[in-house]
Amino acid sequence: MTITLMPLINGARLEQNIIELSQIGNIAKGGVSRLAFSPEDLQARQLVHKWMEAAGMTVRVDAAGNLIGHYAGCQPELGVLATGSHIDTVEAGGRYDGVLGVLAGIEVVRTLRDNNIRLEHPIEVIVFTDEENTVLGCKSMAGTLNLDPEIYRRRDGRDIQNCLKTIGGNWSQIETARRNAADIAAFVELHVEQGGVLESEGKEIGVVKGIVGQYRFLVTVKGRANHAGTTPMHLRRDALVAASRVVIAVNHLATSIPGEQVATVGMMNVSPNATNTVPERVELSIDLRDLSLELLTSLISLLEAELTVIARETHTEIVLKRTLEVLPTLAHVDIQSTIVRCCEELGASYTYLPSRAGHDAQEIGRFTAMGMIFVPSRSGISHSEDEYTSPEQCALGSNVLLHTLIELDKIK
Amino acid sequence: MTITLMPLINGARLEQNIIELSQIGNIAKGGVSRLAFSPEDLQARQLVHKWMEAAGMTVRVDAAGNLIGHYAGCQPELGVLATGSHIDTVEAGGRYDGVLGVLAGIEVVRTLRDNNIRLEHPIEVIVFTDEENTVLGCKSMAGTLNLDPEIYRRRDGRDIQNCLKTIGGNWSQIETARRNAADIAAFVELHVEQGGVLESEGKEIGVVKGIVGQYRFLVTVKGRANHAGTTPMHLRRDALVAASRVVIAVNHLATSIPGEQVATVGMMNVSPNATNTVPERVELSIDLRDLSLELLTSLISLLEAELTVIARETHTEIVLKRTLEVLPTLAHVDIQSTIVRCCEELGASYTYLPSRAGHDAQEIGRFTAMGMIFVPSRSGISHSEDEYTSPEQCALGSNVLLHTLIELDKIK
Repeated sequence: MTITLMPLINGARLEQNIIELSQIGNIAKGGVSRLAFSPEDLQARQLVHKWMEAAGMTVRVDAAGNLIGHYAGCQPELGVLATGSHIDTVEAGGRYDGVLGVLAGIEVVRTLRDNNIRLEHPIEVIVFTDEENTVLGCKSMAGTLNLDPEIYRRRDGRDIQNCLKTIGGNWSQIETARRNAADIAAFVELHVEQGGVLESEGKEIGVVKGIVGQYRFLVTVKGRANHAGTTPMHLRRDALVAASRVVIAVNHLATSIPGEQVATVGMMNVSPNATNTVPERVELSIDLRDLSLELLTSLISLLEAELTVIARETHTEIVLKRTLEVLPTLAHVDIQSTIVRCCEELGASYTYLPSRAGHDAQEIGRFTAMGMIFVPSRSGISHSEDEYTSPEQCALGSNVLLHTLIELDKIK
Repeated sequence: MTITLMPLINGARLEQNIIELSQIGNIAKGGVSRLAFSPEDLQARQLVHKWMEAAGMTVRVDAAGNLIGHYAGCQPELGVLATGSHIDTVEAGGRYDGVLGVLAGIEVVRTLRDNNIRLEHPIEVIVFTDEENTVLGCKSMAGTLNLDPEIYRRRDGRDIQNCLKTIGGNWSQIETARRNAADIAAFVELHVEQGGVLESEGKEIGVVKGIVGQYRFLVTVKGRANHAGTTPMHLRRDALVAASRVVIAVNHLATSIPGEQVATVGMMNVSPNATNTVPERVELSIDLRDLSLELLTSLISLLEAELTVIARETHTEIVLKRTLEVLPTLAHVDIQSTIVRCCEELGASYTYLPSRAGHDAQEIGRFTAMGMIFVPSRSGISHSEDEYTSPEQCALGSNVLLHTLIELDKIK
């Protein structure tokens, strides 16, 4: 890695922030438990709020509870260049997921200020509300939120109205959180990969091509229970033989053509599930993800055709029910090429890859130009105390973010 | 069906016995619950004991609790021609399973006596102890019993010593129940099919070729848990994809060659069993049955080779552990041909078939010539209140049993 660009962020200061934030909600072995709207979430938001102000930003909380630091630009009438991510975690998460994107954003602003640089565009660093569960913050901003408050009720019974109030939001005004492309000119999110591609390819930076769309299905296979000893093979209607062919077919869907599509059967329940009985009924899940909506649609058609063949050949009934649809979001090509140029000038190795996990950028990308920068996750592990990205990797990603914003400021 | 042989059994009397016995332990809709060693079992044994004596038999109970009715022959020094089955049921069974073989045996003896016929060989009608659970009665007679009393302890905690005492047996003398080929010259068991072959082929009598051997295995597939979204297909070690290939391979084992072998995966448990996670571990059962030990051995070798290929290709570890081995028992060819000749002379349609369920004859056949006669089970259903074989079918099977014993008496 040969650094030729200036300015550069302060990696030690960033690392110090990451460690300090990880103390709020810290659990065993470096893990973090900081569910959205929890006391720990609140405390973390206050600390970030303080850091934003200290970096020279004006800070506000919108109706959706999104915490927004605004660093003025030379031309206040321009749309903002936004960055950020989230600081809530899953029940037992790591120190980097989301946090890196927020703290790198603040570090970028600090670096600009330290170097007396003010861009043409204003910069915003955004902490989105509840990324890990309802994705309420970014969806409110994108105007894609379901407005039924009941679906946001917490497991502990708390309603969303009070949750939002706690963090300075306001459910009854939630539609005011909506933004548009004139308002946010571009959004760039730095995030840990949460997968093993960069590590396995030995690359420092991932240039995200987009965030995959996701379909989930529940498949029910209905056969007939029979004695495993006394029922000849040709008289059987074995739901598990049919279901196994479905698993193979789903795997084949993703592996039989080039590309980065993934298809998974993660859940399968067999009934009556007895050694001595030909299975009567199997339920299984299908999870299908890819960047291309066209490809996804075509894979689903292939799947449906394949299920028809399997049902016919195994004398079973197979029912496919869609349980989730999230459309893909492509990263803007200009932002991708800007990230690449910055990598090259910083001497950082990079590769293009899709994000196969959801991010706040997925919703923001529905109304404005979006890009994402990935840094490696050790062993591809995330949502775990074992999540780790080195200080050098965090700093390099932050420098790519800094220069991407500087470059985007020029071309916009 | 053209009856040309005499004598013939009294079908109405047999049917009356079946109905009367079904009242002991009767449950909803004609079902019977008469677990071995239960008060109902005891009461049923007393009734059968009474019927045996009334038919002119001397009755004894051996150390294993087997209830044995002896009808003297002209040559007392000859080994007996034995028949019989069991009168215990599963928790919620039917009226015919086992019962038909016992009551037909008694009816055969009554018919001989009514017609003043005494065969050269003595005849014995045997009620074997606990066929549905431990197969203790026939195993004691065959000398194949495991002599650790603990493995026969009942679910309710009762020990086998007391259970046997209740029905007139004696655990400490159990080895005295053993018999040999000089003692029992042949054993012929009439039983309901408990499968759908006769009904689907439109045949009245099944000539059993033998009782299949059975192997059971527990297969453990170990892969690696991964995020279903972020893990590219080529980096996965998906235990469920591997397990599904195992299911297909097991099915293929049985269906890819001619023959009557059956292979079943009835149980499968996936872990962690979450839509969003590539499965880490799958456990599944394999049940494999056929008449030919040679074929079974060769199928198991093919299976092992196939598992090695699947493990290598899916980057998983697959462990195969045998949990049950029951060797097949072939029916004696002379008894099979005798049954066939009787069917032809009685004008009964018949087919050869294996018994894919276990029976008392499986153990008795380990030390002497064995044969079985099957009559149809409606819709192939057994171990259920819906178990049904018509009075005409029961009578026809009993007539085949009667004449088979008469013919065997001549050729022995």
